[in-house]
Amino acid sequence: MSEYRRFFAPLCEKTAQTVYLKEEYNHLAKVLRAKVGDEVIVCFNDGNDNFCRITSISADTVTAEILSTYPNKCESPVDITLYFGCLKGGNTDLVVQKAVELGVKAIQPFTSSFTVSSCDKKKAERLTKISHEASKQCGRAYLVDVKEDIPFSKLTEIISSHIHEQIIFCDERGGAPLVSAISTAKNIGVIIGSEGGFSIEEENQLCKIATGVTLGNRILRAETATFFALSVIEAVRGLK
Amino acid sequence: MSEYRRFFAPLCEKTAQTVYLKEEYNHLAKVLRAKVGDEVIVCFNDGNDNFCRITSISADTVTAEILSTYPNKCESPVDITLYFGCLKGGNTDLVVQKAVELGVKAIQPFTSSFTVSSCDKKKAERLTKISHEASKQCGRAYLVDVKEDIPFSKLTEIISSHIHEQIIFCDERGGAPLVSAISTAKNIGVIIGSEGGFSIEEENQLCKIATGVTLGNRILRAETATFFALSVIEAVRGLK
Repeated sequence: MSEYRRFFAPLCEKTAQTVYLKEEYNHLAKVLRAKVGDEVIVCFNDGNDNFCRITSISADTVTAEILSTYPNKCESPVDITLYFGCLKGGNTDLVVQKAVELGVKAIQPFTSSFTVSSCDKKKAERLTKISHEASKQCGRAYLVDVKEDIPFSKLTEIISSHIHEQIIFCDERGGAPLVSAISTAKNIGVIIGSEGGFSIEEENQLCKIATGVTLGNRILRAETATFFALSVIEAVRGLK
Repeated sequence: MSEYRRFFAPLCEKTAQTVYLKEEYNHLAKVLRAKVGDEVIVCFNDGNDNFCRITSISADTVTAEILSTYPNKCESPVDITLYFGCLKGGNTDLVVQKAVELGVKAIQPFTSSFTVSSCDKKKAERLTKISHEASKQCGRAYLVDVKEDIPFSKLTEIISSHIHEQIIFCDERGGAPLVSAISTAKNIGVIIGSEGGFSIEEENQLCKIATGVTLGNRILRAETATFFALSVIEAVRGLK
């Protein structure tokens, strides 16, 4: 292994200086054919990167010593939660993969009047795998679990409970231009509808509890709207 | 047809008040089963939307009268040309579709040291179809043709010839944060490498003739980097 590979082991056994990798054993020892002396990055899902050197490989455990620990440089300074209407086909996979690359900290699908898809436990597990792969690939130190879908009523209940400092609602009918609407909040929720959009009643409800923004006059597909909103928030707030 | 459908007919026969749609005949008459009296939008690829009413449907031509003509509201005020390194598999399709949704005016693929794909005439034609469909879907008044790939030497020749007021090069090694690097130029070229990135020599060459920008510390896939850069430029320059 010529470059640093990244492994997440939030629940692995560890001491102050040693980690015992069991869940990643197969990937490390069999797929990547890691050898004693190889160096890898191990993340405990706490925002830090632990640079480790493999010290032994047994029948079911890769043991590594922690050489140094640094705060990960890839995490966004703003906590973004993506709430998205369940999409059809492969677009959900794409939205999850890109959302993680674009730095979101949480992903919550929902159903609403015009959604024709859902996200049950099995699908959420599959999407979580895609999400975790994306975290590894793009160099993050946090894993994002994709949750099962919630109904629209639950969505409005959550965002009314002030768990986010700002809620941005991408409103097809128009609103403030996105760039100027982005606040200095440390915790932002972003709401994007499914292919079918929202009913007028739903739109009106969301406008009361969220900042309605426009993404422009072009009719963006739901997944494009997601990439657009998350990219812009990250560029405005996350890039130094 | 309950809503306005959009048709591009740049080369159709027309008088001041009448258009004769032959190329779109099949789609209009057979697929959508348009009837006399139906209203559609016809674009001549000149930035305007022509609201038309169908007056007759013959064996090979749909004739429509132009009711009114308005400047299209979906075109970006900034002319963006996307130069992207040829990608593998379906990612090129995705980049083309999203780039058009995000408002680009021209798309030019290129090959460089680490590209493993190409864009020959046949592929460019297929991508152009995807591009045109995207223009229709998102409500634009211009069609964007995807060109055949050019070698890296030709890319640097083009961007050195000052056809763009600003060239933004998404440099994996870092650079100015994208938002602050976007100028007030009316004509911007955006360069994004393929999955393999650029060689050091290529990067150094590009840095001499373009504004190197960073998209952040996370390692974005090539298609994600494209969505990111185009979204941010459009949000900063295109949204009023």
